[in-house]
Amino acid sequence: TTSLKIAVIPGDGIGTEVMPYGIRCLQAVAQAFNISLNFTAFNFASCEYYQKHGDMLPMDWKETLVKFDAIYFGAVGMPDVVPDNVSLWGSLLKFRREFDQYINLRPCRLMPGVRCPLIDRKPGDIDFWIVRENTEGEYSNIGGKIFEGTDRETVIQETVMTKTGVDRVLRYAFSLAQHRPRKHLTSATKSNGISITMPYWDERVHDISLSYPEVRVDKYHIDILTAHFVQKPDIFDVVVGSNLFGDILSDLGPACTGTIGIAPSGNINPDRTFPSLFEPVHGSAPDIAGKGIANPVGMIWAGQMMLQHFGYFDAASLMLQAIEAVLARGDTEVLTIDMGGKGTTQSLGEAIEKEI
Amino acid sequence: TTSLKIAVIPGDGIGTEVMPYGIRCLQAVAQAFNISLNFTAFNFASCEYYQKHGDMLPMDWKETLVKFDAIYFGAVGMPDVVPDNVSLWGSLLKFRREFDQYINLRPCRLMPGVRCPLIDRKPGDIDFWIVRENTEGEYSNIGGKIFEGTDRETVIQETVMTKTGVDRVLRYAFSLAQHRPRKHLTSATKSNGISITMPYWDERVHDISLSYPEVRVDKYHIDILTAHFVQKPDIFDVVVGSNLFGDILSDLGPACTGTIGIAPSGNINPDRTFPSLFEPVHGSAPDIAGKGIANPVGMIWAGQMMLQHFGYFDAASLMLQAIEAVLARGDTEVLTIDMGGKGTTQSLGEAIEKEI
Ligand SMILES: CC(C)[C@H](C(=O)O)[C@@H](O)C(=O)O
Ligand SMILES: CC(C)[C@H](C(=O)O)[C@@H](O)C(=O)O
Repeated sequence: TTSLKIAVIPGDGIGTEVMPYGIRCLQAVAQAFNISLNFTAFNFASCEYYQKHGDMLPMDWKETLVKFDAIYFGAVGMPDVVPDNVSLWGSLLKFRREFDQYINLRPCRLMPGVRCPLIDRKPGDIDFWIVRENTEGEYSNIGGKIFEGTDRETVIQETVMTKTGVDRVLRYAFSLAQHRPRKHLTSATKSNGISITMPYWDERVHDISLSYPEVRVDKYHIDILTAHFVQKPDIFDVVVGSNLFGDILSDLGPACTGTIGIAPSGNINPDRTFPSLFEPVHGSAPDIAGKGIANPVGMIWAGQMMLQHFGYFDAASLMLQAIEAVLARGDTEVLTIDMGGKGTTQSLGEAIEKEI
Repeated sequence: TTSLKIAVIPGDGIGTEVMPYGIRCLQAVAQAFNISLNFTAFNFASCEYYQKHGDMLPMDWKETLVKFDAIYFGAVGMPDVVPDNVSLWGSLLKFRREFDQYINLRPCRLMPGVRCPLIDRKPGDIDFWIVRENTEGEYSNIGGKIFEGTDRETVIQETVMTKTGVDRVLRYAFSLAQHRPRKHLTSATKSNGISITMPYWDERVHDISLSYPEVRVDKYHIDILTAHFVQKPDIFDVVVGSNLFGDILSDLGPACTGTIGIAPSGNINPDRTFPSLFEPVHGSAPDIAGKGIANPVGMIWAGQMMLQHFGYFDAASLMLQAIEAVLARGDTEVLTIDMGGKGTTQSLGEAIEKEI
């Protein structure tokens, strides 16, 4: 059997706390299904590494990581030590761009046993995917400051959208929608206010939709779309958005299903020219780091998405069932604080491992 | 007594339906407090006007409107007839910019009698202000398209933030926070991803905060901030954001309090060099236009903010009490559909007028 080579990057804060449970759950399922997973851990892409080396990554990071099939990533950021834009642009955002992980795929699902902050919603009511553009758009890093230190001081930053970049994420989203029973795609826009890039986004949605006649498409401006996430999350099936809009929606969506602590994120290069990266949606969470109370489900579920990505569908579905089974029990001794429980990263991580 | 000259612009869709009730309620309260309000209606800034004249506004719109003390505005947009970016940049967004209405002030309050979509929240739990930058930032209109029609097609749009623009909205927000009991200001940022303008925004927040030592300041990235709006809306007191972030938060916030149908918006020029503009947050809502079921509270409450702006505090507070009293009754024959009732624009509008 071939072996999957996985680069493990725990990063900072709670990233380092949840990672061990992600690996243990993956090892458990790999054993059950006779899959060979080969983990190699790296200490770069962390603020501690930055403090020692003055950079988030070693010079040869790309040659090193490109040899792996996938990257299993915790979280980066210690804003008291390294400014967030430095640490993130020096690691996660660099990986996404240089490994052309142009799809960011994030499930949004109300799981049994998880307390939903919205009234009258039960498991099954909320179950959709967010497809986020992951390499361009509002995250451009182009621009600068002029008239520094004077009253005329002005900063400019450019949003850049390319036909290639927009079309490929839309095609991915349309094709995902086409394979789902409801075949419904919602596009996030703001073409009434953001007058150049967003009308272009709408135009591309319209053009690409012609190739997917079975998919029902609608679009909402991002402001009212966030309102609909709260007021009628059941209407969504697949939601596609630009880098920034996808970012916002994929925190808001999981919050509407109880906690962003359980949400995973696949940073995917569908062409497989470079490794894809799987991570929890929550960040390094400096406020709760070091306490052992972080929710490990996002990390574990990210591992599940990784197996899915490699076509290990049975193993992936078992892993998701195990997560669901443990959450459904609603055992407050096991569940973490963000889910209303009294448990720890360890209690919840081990419960899922055992279930697998 | 001096008379306030108010330009009335109903606009499109439900804007034209809710406007009459806004005026009737204002007239009722003006009579009670012996305030002289002088309304003049205009049919421009509507898509119907555009269809006749090829433009949203007449040539002399600025000379015409500048003579008024305030603009009472319904809503603009009929996307099937005129693209939203054309109609909005040709009217509302132009007013905001050319009349330098650099503050967009929007209350977010859970009212008695209004069904909240969040579990366990009662009136009083959610009560904060959103202060939105209203003239620059992401709404820049600068940029363009290159390599049109080829595979290299690329669109670029610039976000522009000036020290003047950022500082004045921050000062307004800090000073608002300082006058409230909790003295708490939350800044919306995204400095980990939007690497130039947003770190600049954070810098300005830090600098200005030094002049307001009594105000407790925190900041959240916009993604997790939308999550907090759902999960702990009670922590907010004053929230300040850029043009786009403020736009998003001021739809999401009211959605978390039941319906965006009741939310008002003050587009304020605090220097009073130009008229300010008061409008409901909801747009023209083409999907429900013409049915007489639009919620008139946003329009009426916008009138209340207008009175407040001119220092008619007693009249304004009576008007708000009247709105609250009618909503608190929870009479489903009176309340509109977005609030779970069976009423109409007329039933709810007249109930509030009568209460006043
Ligand atoms: C209609 C639109 C351009 C406008 C905006 O984005 O500012 C609206 O959403 C608002 O919030 O006033
Ligand atoms: C940490 C940050 C730069 C990142 C993003 O904005 O993409 C995160 O919020 C995410 O959603 O993956």
